[in-house]
Amino acid sequence: MVDWSLGALAHELGAALRGDADKCICKLQTLRDAGPDSLSFLANTRYTDALAQCRAGALILRPADAGLWAGDALLSDNPYLTYARASRLFEHRPARPAGRHASALIADDAVVAEDVHIGAYVVIGAGVEIAAGSVIEAGCVIGEGCRLGEGVYLAPRVVLYPEVQLGARVRIQSGSVVGADGFGFANDQGRWQRIAQLGRVILGDDVDIGANTCIDRGALGDTVLEEGVIVDNQVQIAHNVHIGAHTAIAACVGISGSTRIGRYCVLAGGVGLVGHIELCDGVHITGMTMVTKSISSPGSYSSGTSFEPSRQWKKTAVRLRQLESMATRLNRLEGMVEQMQTAADK
Amino acid sequence: MVDWSLGALAHELGAALRGDADKCICKLQTLRDAGPDSLSFLANTRYTDALAQCRAGALILRPADAGLWAGDALLSDNPYLTYARASRLFEHRPARPAGRHASALIADDAVVAEDVHIGAYVVIGAGVEIAAGSVIEAGCVIGEGCRLGEGVYLAPRVVLYPEVQLGARVRIQSGSVVGADGFGFANDQGRWQRIAQLGRVILGDDVDIGANTCIDRGALGDTVLEEGVIVDNQVQIAHNVHIGAHTAIAACVGISGSTRIGRYCVLAGGVGLVGHIELCDGVHITGMTMVTKSISSPGSYSSGTSFEPSRQWKKTAVRLRQLESMATRLNRLEGMVEQMQTAADK
Amino acid sequence: MVDWSLGALAHELGAALRGDADKCICKLQTLRDAGPDSLSFLANTRYTDALAQCRAGALILRPADAGLWAGDALLSDNPYLTYARASRLFEHRPARPAGRHASALIADDAVVAEDVHIGAYVVIGAGVEIAAGSVIEAGCVIGEGCRLGEGVYLAPRVVLYPEVQLGARVRIQSGSVVGADGFGFANDQGRWQRIAQLGRVILGDDVDIGANTCIDRGALGDTVLEEGVIVDNQVQIAHNVHIGAHTAIAACVGISGSTRIGRYCVLAGGVGLVGHIELCDGVHITGMTMVTKSISSPGSYSSGTSFEPSRQWKKTAVRLRQLESMATRLNRLEGMVEQMQTAADK
Repeated sequence: MVDWSLGALAHELGAALRGDADKCICKLQTLRDAGPDSLSFLANTRYTDALAQCRAGALILRPADAGLWAGDALLSDNPYLTYARASRLFEHRPARPAGRHASALIADDAVVAEDVHIGAYVVIGAGVEIAAGSVIEAGCVIGEGCRLGEGVYLAPRVVLYPEVQLGARVRIQSGSVVGADGFGFANDQGRWQRIAQLGRVILGDDVDIGANTCIDRGALGDTVLEEGVIVDNQVQIAHNVHIGAHTAIAACVGISGSTRIGRYCVLAGGVGLVGHIELCDGVHITGMTMVTKSISSPGSYSSGTSFEPSRQWKKTAVRLRQLESMATRLNRLEGMVEQMQTAADK
Repeated sequence: MVDWSLGALAHELGAALRGDADKCICKLQTLRDAGPDSLSFLANTRYTDALAQCRAGALILRPADAGLWAGDALLSDNPYLTYARASRLFEHRPARPAGRHASALIADDAVVAEDVHIGAYVVIGAGVEIAAGSVIEAGCVIGEGCRLGEGVYLAPRVVLYPEVQLGARVRIQSGSVVGADGFGFANDQGRWQRIAQLGRVILGDDVDIGANTCIDRGALGDTVLEEGVIVDNQVQIAHNVHIGAHTAIAACVGISGSTRIGRYCVLAGGVGLVGHIELCDGVHITGMTMVTKSISSPGSYSSGTSFEPSRQWKKTAVRLRQLESMATRLNRLEGMVEQMQTAADK
Repeated sequence: MVDWSLGALAHELGAALRGDADKCICKLQTLRDAGPDSLSFLANTRYTDALAQCRAGALILRPADAGLWAGDALLSDNPYLTYARASRLFEHRPARPAGRHASALIADDAVVAEDVHIGAYVVIGAGVEIAAGSVIEAGCVIGEGCRLGEGVYLAPRVVLYPEVQLGARVRIQSGSVVGADGFGFANDQGRWQRIAQLGRVILGDDVDIGANTCIDRGALGDTVLEEGVIVDNQVQIAHNVHIGAHTAIAACVGISGSTRIGRYCVLAGGVGLVGHIELCDGVHITGMTMVTKSISSPGSYSSGTSFEPSRQWKKTAVRLRQLESMATRLNRLEGMVEQMQTAADK
């Protein structure tokens, strides 16, 4: 628990204060849960109704919405962004002081900055470089020749295969595997012959990776995520994928090999992309869409069918397989009707 | 291998014995594989044909089906449930005796009940509480402040982030990650600003979690799975999801943030749910369905299309994109035909 | 980095040499990236255009394509396969010499061949057998009674539950979990009763498993992958699945319990299969297809809808739910038109 005065918060967050600068705020909570010592926020006017019941000590809201709330307030043009910044002030993660746990196994020639935290049972291979301010939690395995920039955070049990490069402030949640062999095989009369995966994985500055995600190393060139890319849990990024800066990838997405995704794209949950295609900048793919071709215009794209009660869905599914014959019948009918009309017109 | 007399099994399982109480049973097997020292079961009359060839020493079946099998039998109104109970009698997992492996690192102020088993290379943070009868297998990492109820089982290499709460008898398979940061970011002129995830994960009594599944901690409030929820492998449960008691979630399901699922629901494999929706009690979603809206009536729901030979499917896919124009043409044709009929009627 | 003379490469790869046998080759690269000390390959004439700019020291290509490239060459009837073989010559993974890291915990009665490499913090249970030439990387957990054939490779942090059997040369990438409990429960008046999973997992020779994949143990019988099956990342293989030899399974596939897949099948990324069905040999399923029934003829199968701009897709989705009524209207119209025509013919 961290205590702030409302005035200090306003200063730290660059928001305009309305009300009691000395009020003590010790929590950040939702409109519904907030109590007198909590800060909350109104980013979406859909939730305006909740204000009547809200007991928050203070609210982050837009100057334009200031009239909706009589209590203490922090006024901000972008309340959601101000909430994001505030959230980091109230994060109370256990301290990870500089130093190496006695059980950490670090290769003699690894270069680890002094203030780095290395947790229990971590294994760090030869030639690894870890820059200042990084935290490597318990049970991580960092392969030979990896390079980690400043302020990297690896949660417990992350695996980096050899030669992975992480930019500054990269964060990776538990269970993720970066740099595993891509799925490359040549077929030899029915038998699969493994193709050694000779490339690397390179993650730019401020890349953020969720839990149990996989990013495979390149087959020949590298797999690259440019700066500021954010990736959720359970995502699969195959060999030689290239993802442009500031693109967001939600959970359970699968991206096949050698596909290129532009900058500022958003892939919603469960999206699948085939290999060797290209998405331009600014493409938004809605949930569970299957992307089978390149996309060269920014905008939103979708596939899939709406859900229905299963009984109706079964009928629709049957009809869908009759669509080809329905189209043929429609053509025929049009011909007949036009002929009849022509005959009638005579 | 555990040996039972058929009589002892009948007693233990609460089933009626027909036949030789002294017969020795040392295995549980399928109808097809069972031999004279095996117990098997008939829960579905679809498999009645297999009885002719079946060499099982004894069978669990319904009293109503008793005439289908001449051999020794355990009669039960719910053979599948009786089989489930029997399966646990024949489970011969390696013993995990009370005690802490010498390599386990346990914070000084952690409170671990005496009979708990802590495996090799486990790391347990400050303030953790683990109740009696729990088993923590090798390589688990348990973050600061977690609380584990009685009889919890963590398979090797489970990660619990700080402040996760597990009810009694919670079981989690290997590789699962509970309490990782949810995927929360605010957009700041194209750049993503991380939102600290301040909530917890709370799993009720008897929750069962598969392998390589992720359950993220809440952003502000908590992510909650009520008692008796069962979850398969490779499932993604985002921040602030709430799942009602006794709901079952099959493999590869993805549930987006803040979605609420009722009690006694079933989500089949590969289902995806968007965020901020609500499913009432008793909803059944069939495999790979995309759920984009709240559901307020119990029952079965589906989406997706039936599979076909790829050549036909390509035609269907093309026609599907013409559906809008087909509908327009159908409207026009109806107009023409009706007009012609009106004219003819005159 | 490994240096080869072009002549030695030709000999090693069984390819015909054209040009300078003494040329030094130290890398394998793409047509675009290759420099004068690199080998590259042309397997697909789609890339012929790239040859004009290509600066590779030598190229692998078909004798029939030899005229397209004036430089040094290795001629092969299957350039992609020759590339696969070459890739292994240029793989420079860190050495994993025979021996056991001091921190590895190996049960007294485990039988581990002398030349096996056991990495740091590995835990090996009672009765485990590991044959010659195997490499077990850091942090793996191998349960009681597992048997590993010759030349097995386990990347860091693989978990094998008890009694898993791996054939010769099986390779498993990080984070994968083999032999976890299948998702088996019986419903007891709304509550789920766990069914103990008594079977094993058996992987044949040369099976190759990606990262963060799950293969569950059988409920009664075993889960089996026959020889030469290749499996990508994030795949879910449920209890009692049986996969025939040389079948390939791409990332994010989910296979439900007791399903049988034939030999030489290919499941593309994101495919889902329901349980208790059977696919014959030689079935190819395209990406994200939902397979709900058995398939008894080889060939390619698909489901799903093409992606479109979201605005159009919404219209299609609405029309799709009207398909049943469109079919009814089409029927009615056909009746009317035919009646009118009959009347006109009189």
